[in-house]
Amino acid sequence: MNKDTILLAQLNPIVGNTDYNYNKALEYLERARSQGIKLVVYPELFLLGYPPIDLIERYPLLVEQNLQYLSEFAKKCTNISALIGFCEFNKNPCGKKYFNSAAYLHNGKIEKIMRKSLLPNYSEFNEARYFQAAEFNSDERIINFNNYRAGVIICEENWNDFDFFDKPLYAFDPLQKLAEEQKPDFIINLSASPTRAKKEQLLNNMLSNCAKKYSMPVVYVNQTGSTDGISFCGTSRVYDKNGELIARAKSFCEDYFTVTPYKSEVNRIEPLVKGLDRTLNSQKEFSLDYEPDLERTFLTITSAIKDYFSKNGFQHAVLGLSGGLDSSCCAALLTFALGAKNVIGVSMPSDITSSQSKNDAKELALNLGISFFEIPIKNMTEASSKTFNEIFDKINAVWGDFRYKAPLTFDNIQARSRAMILWGISNEFGSTLPIATSDKSELYMGYATINGDMSGGYAPVCDVTKTKLFALARWINGNAPVKNAIPEAVLTKPPGAELAINPKTGKPLLAEEALMPYEFLDEVIWRLENLQQSAKEMLAEKFLYEKKENVSFEQKKLWLEKFAKRVQGAQFKWSIMPPGPIVDARSIVRSEYVQPIASKLKF
Amino acid sequence: MNKDTILLAQLNPIVGNTDYNYNKALEYLERARSQGIKLVVYPELFLLGYPPIDLIERYPLLVEQNLQYLSEFAKKCTNISALIGFCEFNKNPCGKKYFNSAAYLHNGKIEKIMRKSLLPNYSEFNEARYFQAAEFNSDERIINFNNYRAGVIICEENWNDFDFFDKPLYAFDPLQKLAEEQKPDFIINLSASPTRAKKEQLLNNMLSNCAKKYSMPVVYVNQTGSTDGISFCGTSRVYDKNGELIARAKSFCEDYFTVTPYKSEVNRIEPLVKGLDRTLNSQKEFSLDYEPDLERTFLTITSAIKDYFSKNGFQHAVLGLSGGLDSSCCAALLTFALGAKNVIGVSMPSDITSSQSKNDAKELALNLGISFFEIPIKNMTEASSKTFNEIFDKINAVWGDFRYKAPLTFDNIQARSRAMILWGISNEFGSTLPIATSDKSELYMGYATINGDMSGGYAPVCDVTKTKLFALARWINGNAPVKNAIPEAVLTKPPGAELAINPKTGKPLLAEEALMPYEFLDEVIWRLENLQQSAKEMLAEKFLYEKKENVSFEQKKLWLEKFAKRVQGAQFKWSIMPPGPIVDARSIVRSEYVQPIASKLKF
Repeated sequence: MNKDTILLAQLNPIVGNTDYNYNKALEYLERARSQGIKLVVYPELFLLGYPPIDLIERYPLLVEQNLQYLSEFAKKCTNISALIGFCEFNKNPCGKKYFNSAAYLHNGKIEKIMRKSLLPNYSEFNEARYFQAAEFNSDERIINFNNYRAGVIICEENWNDFDFFDKPLYAFDPLQKLAEEQKPDFIINLSASPTRAKKEQLLNNMLSNCAKKYSMPVVYVNQTGSTDGISFCGTSRVYDKNGELIARAKSFCEDYFTVTPYKSEVNRIEPLVKGLDRTLNSQKEFSLDYEPDLERTFLTITSAIKDYFSKNGFQHAVLGLSGGLDSSCCAALLTFALGAKNVIGVSMPSDITSSQSKNDAKELALNLGISFFEIPIKNMTEASSKTFNEIFDKINAVWGDFRYKAPLTFDNIQARSRAMILWGISNEFGSTLPIATSDKSELYMGYATINGDMSGGYAPVCDVTKTKLFALARWINGNAPVKNAIPEAVLTKPPGAELAINPKTGKPLLAEEALMPYEFLDEVIWRLENLQQSAKEMLAEKFLYEKKENVSFEQKKLWLEKFAKRVQGAQFKWSIMPPGPIVDARSIVRSEYVQPIASKLKF
Repeated sequence: MNKDTILLAQLNPIVGNTDYNYNKALEYLERARSQGIKLVVYPELFLLGYPPIDLIERYPLLVEQNLQYLSEFAKKCTNISALIGFCEFNKNPCGKKYFNSAAYLHNGKIEKIMRKSLLPNYSEFNEARYFQAAEFNSDERIINFNNYRAGVIICEENWNDFDFFDKPLYAFDPLQKLAEEQKPDFIINLSASPTRAKKEQLLNNMLSNCAKKYSMPVVYVNQTGSTDGISFCGTSRVYDKNGELIARAKSFCEDYFTVTPYKSEVNRIEPLVKGLDRTLNSQKEFSLDYEPDLERTFLTITSAIKDYFSKNGFQHAVLGLSGGLDSSCCAALLTFALGAKNVIGVSMPSDITSSQSKNDAKELALNLGISFFEIPIKNMTEASSKTFNEIFDKINAVWGDFRYKAPLTFDNIQARSRAMILWGISNEFGSTLPIATSDKSELYMGYATINGDMSGGYAPVCDVTKTKLFALARWINGNAPVKNAIPEAVLTKPPGAELAINPKTGKPLLAEEALMPYEFLDEVIWRLENLQQSAKEMLAEKFLYEKKENVSFEQKKLWLEKFAKRVQGAQFKWSIMPPGPIVDARSIVRSEYVQPIASKLKF
């Protein structure tokens, strides 16, 4: 191995599991040592695991342990050096409790400590809650490696270029200071940067731009794996001093990745997961062409499921299969994340459930190779309905004026009986987690039953809108390890909860009858999340759906009013949704977005 | 009215409801004007409402509206002036989107704008997520009122005195700068400062200290009311230049409060709610003497319930009454918050439910004057049990190795059937919210059933440990509007979920048999939350319970290990708990504390 070769250890830590993280770091160090590699670079905060959120407020012992492991690790660094992220106590007379730091381990010692100066505190980032932003001194950021001087920065410190960003978040640019004051031979960036829709192009342009701007190679080492809703895609890479990409690691998995950054030689360049390499058609306009983002979406969700299960000690997933789109997609995603033998699909038909739905559910399970069982819920719903009628008659005496007598109450018994069965299975069979199948469009509308389809330990598609979920289902059919697993009927029949009969049609009520056309709804969500448009602004612009269908101004206004009213009412439901993976550029996943429930929104 | 009299408008805003907030501000302005008052001071961020959390990221229209209302309001300020908090766009070339600002409205115009320079970002505060910390210029903070020069600061700017705090959070003290550079005649502080256990003494000492230190009267105007888990107690007040308290408004309600700060004359001094005026016996030691904090606890919870319901448009609460402590306390708190006619208690006995429990539930409801209905759940549990057995036999074929065959599965059917009934009532009767009755001790241990007692729209006692809840129940019996509402039997029988029979005793399993003694458990929680002690440190110190009972080292170690294991397993349950009021000095209420679920804690 060339003596100037560096190992980028693209790894997946477990937050707070310092034993695990240390042993993983050590494994890669020994492997590198045995190959004659002289420098190993790990991701940001690796020994503790990112993101700790509030864990370190309550468990300072974890920080002590990551410090002990840092000392241990330093002793191992003889004949080989390491750059590794860790968490440090702030011993200064003022400020927050901790620093987000990196250490250069060399000659068996901690040779240098670098403290992060810019702390992201927006969306899924909460670093200012517990870390102190450090003063940035460029001379503290230089490490000597062989005959090179490398400048070290930590994640966000790369994201404040005044030329690149329209409105930078911070008043100073550490990278500029480092580049201009120290003129290092190259830059090493230790990161824990989550994947988001459309982020790769931004990241690529930004890193390439800064390499070119300062005529310095840039080495970017990113974490991989997921924590709750937050996924890191890895995709570590190197740009030469002309801003050309000369090396890139794998995405959505750990990678042992060697590079020689200071030569403009092309190293291993792993192909980008589709969706990482392209932006969606347009950032300014809503589009139903989700194709460019589907592979990334699939991998984000499956890796998030995998990590949520393995890091929390769950092995099995159980979910209700209705024969509808949401549960079918969830079943497929779970199968490809956990393996068919770890997934059970349960069909729990009621009187309303059509034989088509039952067949679709069964066919799906058969295609995926997961276990499938059918259990009618009639006994349960009848017993509950009887009990409901008895108690309602009594309550009628005091709250009769407030009684709805709407079928909804009894419709929901079906969804809740199903969740009861799933949680019962979770109680009875070890390491089994029920799955909440609600999608993003329906969550926005509060069109999900508490303790029903909204109930579960994880919600795989809670950040996928309905129109995108249709596209994802087709993508899965074409590209996942098992082809065409999701029956065609699931993809063609109009969505509906099959909880109620539409009195007008005599058939099960369709979701679009209860809500509004999904193509319209999903564009409202998209405009709200991405453009923060008000209803007035939305009324002034033409929706994609309007270009196809004749929609009167009054109808559009009614739909927007319905949306506003339902979103307001859905807030309290969001507060009891289980976690799920962030997928879109903006989400309502709790790891990213929290709105006061007792509030009045207006859009 | 003395021309130097100021009105402190201690008000309760609704976040995002700018119409409501503006009209409330105007009402107080007109009332003040009619009395010849010349200056009205409103709380921090009042026009928008505090805390907006992420609302303003998605709905900038709300910020535009609060700006329009600010202009409107300025026009009304002729012959009277106002100081009011609002949210402003940050138009600088870098930084976060908004400022947390205050405006001085005078002569019909916005005369001065002041931008908050220190942004709290810990516990329940998330201001650095969306606000830019402004440069502090002391000359921008002076307003001329009659012949006085008043210095204006915003909340956190008062909380960084280097002499007062051991480890201040920020590197500079705005108040010091203002006092030394401008020597104002007095200070006005616009606040939105939540109530927490033991905070009043700190606040009082700090404000008194700063008045004395700079020999300047301090006028402190605080918000009141609750948003989700966060409660503001009001208790606005004035200190003279000797640090003596000369005026204090009411607590836990709005108050129209007039003061003349620059004279050392004593104004109206409202008595402090008990618990606000005293610290708990010791800050360094766990104590079962909760008495000093119970009135504050009661008012925090009842005002939080009241606001959660009214601000979200709910009118009625429904809860299951088991005859146990948790549900009895919740019923009492709901009654005193919402009125007896708005609360329904439902007894839902199963075969295990003792007649004592049924009687206790009934007696409680009778005492409180709430509606009470009894509905046996036998039909529902039998139907579910039958269905469970059928599906489990099927699943046994594939996951038989993982089968627990533990009674727990069937025990939980009872809790889940009860929640199903409560959510059914919520669906059927307008504006009705089911209540989750879980207490803090049991939530820590994960001793709560998902979709069962953990299920509801609000969790009133989720931040009250079991031993404190016993004390609160006794306090309610002695001090609430209805005396002795909670039957003595509820207070004397040992707690138990009445879901299972203990095979050893043949009687319902008691919680302490399933967990550990509550006195011990609650001290573990207290030490973890307040001292961040590790198990090793806890083992080295003597617990209160150990002073009374003989506990071997091995037993203590076993309990601590059990605690660690159960807390780890409870993380995912916490993620689907409904919101509830923060009561203790530290909590697991989501408004304050969020831990990554996929993580390994160690203590």
